[in-house]
Amino acid sequence: MAGSDHLLDAGESIWQAQKAHPFVVELADGSLDRAAFEHWVKQDYRYLQDYARLWALAGTKARDETTMTDLLGVAHNILETEMDLHRSFAADYGISRDELEATEKTPTCVAYTNFLLRTAYEGSLAEIAAALYPCMQGYLDIADHMVELVDDTHEYTPFVETYTSDEFREDVAWGRAFVDDCWERYPGEHKAMEEAFLTSAKLEYRFWEMAYSEEGWGL
Amino acid sequence: MAGSDHLLDAGESIWQAQKAHPFVVELADGSLDRAAFEHWVKQDYRYLQDYARLWALAGTKARDETTMTDLLGVAHNILETEMDLHRSFAADYGISRDELEATEKTPTCVAYTNFLLRTAYEGSLAEIAAALYPCMQGYLDIADHMVELVDDTHEYTPFVETYTSDEFREDVAWGRAFVDDCWERYPGEHKAMEEAFLTSAKLEYRFWEMAYSEEGWGL
Amino acid sequence: MAGSDHLLDAGESIWQAQKAHPFVVELADGSLDRAAFEHWVKQDYRYLQDYARLWALAGTKARDETTMTDLLGVAHNILETEMDLHRSFAADYGISRDELEATEKTPTCVAYTNFLLRTAYEGSLAEIAAALYPCMQGYLDIADHMVELVDDTHEYTPFVETYTSDEFREDVAWGRAFVDDCWERYPGEHKAMEEAFLTSAKLEYRFWEMAYSEEGWGL
Amino acid sequence: MAGSDHLLDAGESIWQAQKAHPFVVELADGSLDRAAFEHWVKQDYRYLQDYARLWALAGTKARDETTMTDLLGVAHNILETEMDLHRSFAADYGISRDELEATEKTPTCVAYTNFLLRTAYEGSLAEIAAALYPCMQGYLDIADHMVELVDDTHEYTPFVETYTSDEFREDVAWGRAFVDDCWERYPGEHKAMEEAFLTSAKLEYRFWEMAYSEEGWGL
Repeated sequence: MAGSDHLLDAGESIWQAQKAHPFVVELADGSLDRAAFEHWVKQDYRYLQDYARLWALAGTKARDETTMTDLLGVAHNILETEMDLHRSFAADYGISRDELEATEKTPTCVAYTNFLLRTAYEGSLAEIAAALYPCMQGYLDIADHMVELVDDTHEYTPFVETYTSDEFREDVAWGRAFVDDCWERYPGEHKAMEEAFLTSAKLEYRFWEMAYSEEGWGL
Repeated sequence: MAGSDHLLDAGESIWQAQKAHPFVVELADGSLDRAAFEHWVKQDYRYLQDYARLWALAGTKARDETTMTDLLGVAHNILETEMDLHRSFAADYGISRDELEATEKTPTCVAYTNFLLRTAYEGSLAEIAAALYPCMQGYLDIADHMVELVDDTHEYTPFVETYTSDEFREDVAWGRAFVDDCWERYPGEHKAMEEAFLTSAKLEYRFWEMAYSEEGWGL
Repeated sequence: MAGSDHLLDAGESIWQAQKAHPFVVELADGSLDRAAFEHWVKQDYRYLQDYARLWALAGTKARDETTMTDLLGVAHNILETEMDLHRSFAADYGISRDELEATEKTPTCVAYTNFLLRTAYEGSLAEIAAALYPCMQGYLDIADHMVELVDDTHEYTPFVETYTSDEFREDVAWGRAFVDDCWERYPGEHKAMEEAFLTSAKLEYRFWEMAYSEEGWGL
Repeated sequence: MAGSDHLLDAGESIWQAQKAHPFVVELADGSLDRAAFEHWVKQDYRYLQDYARLWALAGTKARDETTMTDLLGVAHNILETEMDLHRSFAADYGISRDELEATEKTPTCVAYTNFLLRTAYEGSLAEIAAALYPCMQGYLDIADHMVELVDDTHEYTPFVETYTSDEFREDVAWGRAFVDDCWERYPGEHKAMEEAFLTSAKLEYRFWEMAYSEEGWGL
């Protein structure tokens, strides 16, 4: 069984919980509270900056030039292209660049980004691959699920279109192949990979909950 | 003004919020729900293991031998002494070593420990000092506050005694002097120090809240 | 005085020693032993792979998005473009890709690359900037010096042309501005910057010596 | 076959080269030039400070508390005890603490310490174990060899006594068991372990050569 399939089996109940989460269900049918969606947009922006760092550190840990080039290429692409796309996406919902930059990370965003970065510093390349896989495969699977739920268009349709686009599908396929390759090459890392995958998957679930509950610090 | 005073001024409202938190108030008067207290004991155990790592990394970053020796000495002491004390403390509340080891970190514990570790990898020694200061000074100040609130003894009195002991007071004084020294030596790091201090202080507040609400993953 | 000027003043005697080194003088006039040149080509290839990692780690440490994007862009460019150029350059001297890949690092190459990487993990962004500056400014200054020494063309002329090209000159100017900016922003890091700069400059000198003496492990 | 035996087999020729090195032979019979010996004492002092960092980082990477405690204990012991012993040892040869502190690392010392530290940041625990094994087992084996060569006492006899003492023998046995344990637990890391071991072993050889040739920077 491919490593990605093994991990997805282990995370099955978390995937189901994500698909059933009110943020996901209401985003799919367009009924989601606008403030909750904007909360997600802002926190995802803060997440992306660290996500670029994560890929750069993964590239640094790679031992062969091809893998290093691919991984640093992802980091570079996030900074050169995806950040602009995210700013433009945010602007469509009336959120300015200044607002994005001024956004303070919520506790859940602190938890997720710092878990990823710490894994990037301490863990093996295989562990890092497993830690970043949920945010790729998860968004594709959840967006595919949204399309099944509802096919009317509404204000959140661009979200669904982004994460079911051919381009994103190719990115996820590449990430999946990377995970499968690590799984094969590092059999001693299977347990660490599964733990990292499950922690990230649970943090993905909490990210929806954070947006839906408009989480703050309570201070 | 000493660096520690500057930081404590900046965190004043967070300190007040901690002192007013129901976990703190109810622990002081002995009315705290036992399950909440046990939740704290277990999560604090998981926290301590990473806390030792944090001091070891701080020691690695120190440039002079005395500071390196002091900081690695703290890491060593946590592992050689404090972990045992914590296990013995936990046993007094009926929590076995196996239960402690099997405890899964809550989202808040993930957030706090990984924030600290990531800071230890990426940040300067000054930033690391500021990040770890709230958990020292905070426990002393809150325990001192508890003594003022109530002086009857009850099942949680050992908690108050631990964090108002002469030994802990000396540890905190040492930590405060370390923060003051970093503040003086690295004026370019003041902003980073303040940010790290405030993030840790907020995570301290959330740690009480996590225990009080018996936080889980919701999964 | 700009930070780069301060550092270059501090390294003046090392710069003079580099310009007077027989590898440099003989490369300039074309009399350099071919085996020594090929030794340099192979070791420089191994150096470049770690050099990409260094820029990626620098990018990870940057706090603002523009700097992060610039630094990861350099890492990406090294892997996407410069490695190919170096392979093509090596091929012109009859060195195959397989030979490049199979090259074992010499002690001096181990010293230089690991010094840089360790600085990237432990040091501040300012320290990293200072550590990587000698290999940029040094190659430009030494190649400019070679043009002054001799203007006949010979088998090593492509080396001189590469490092006096407009493109390389722009890269160095960018690097210099980055160093100047770090110097201004982090006054507390001046001493660490100077130390890192001087260590790298000395290792640059040793790199010429390593090639000229066809250094091996003596084992 | 135990991992340590496998590694020692792979490094056999490097061990032989170390035993035959004039620094080793002349130290054994007491004929070694005093300046070469003092060069070794000073550089070894600079090495030890980074060696403590290496163990602290290894401890940080350990996943179980016992291993973490053991590894940080070594780091702590180096700083609390071994540095003092080394200073006292140096004083017996007329080298003051100030001289030790003011010693600039030679190129070989830069290579070795930075190779170890970079491995500690990037590598797995198994790789780190393999990288630090040569400096333990090597000193014991070479000192045992010295005893076989000569049994007269002379000014360097304390060196031989230190590295054939029961205490050092126990430290090495512990290190060997740690390497064996890593070898068993991480079969996927065997190749990385062998590479790290051989690089450290070669750097050990170069460390004798550095002292014997009274290596400087040539600047």
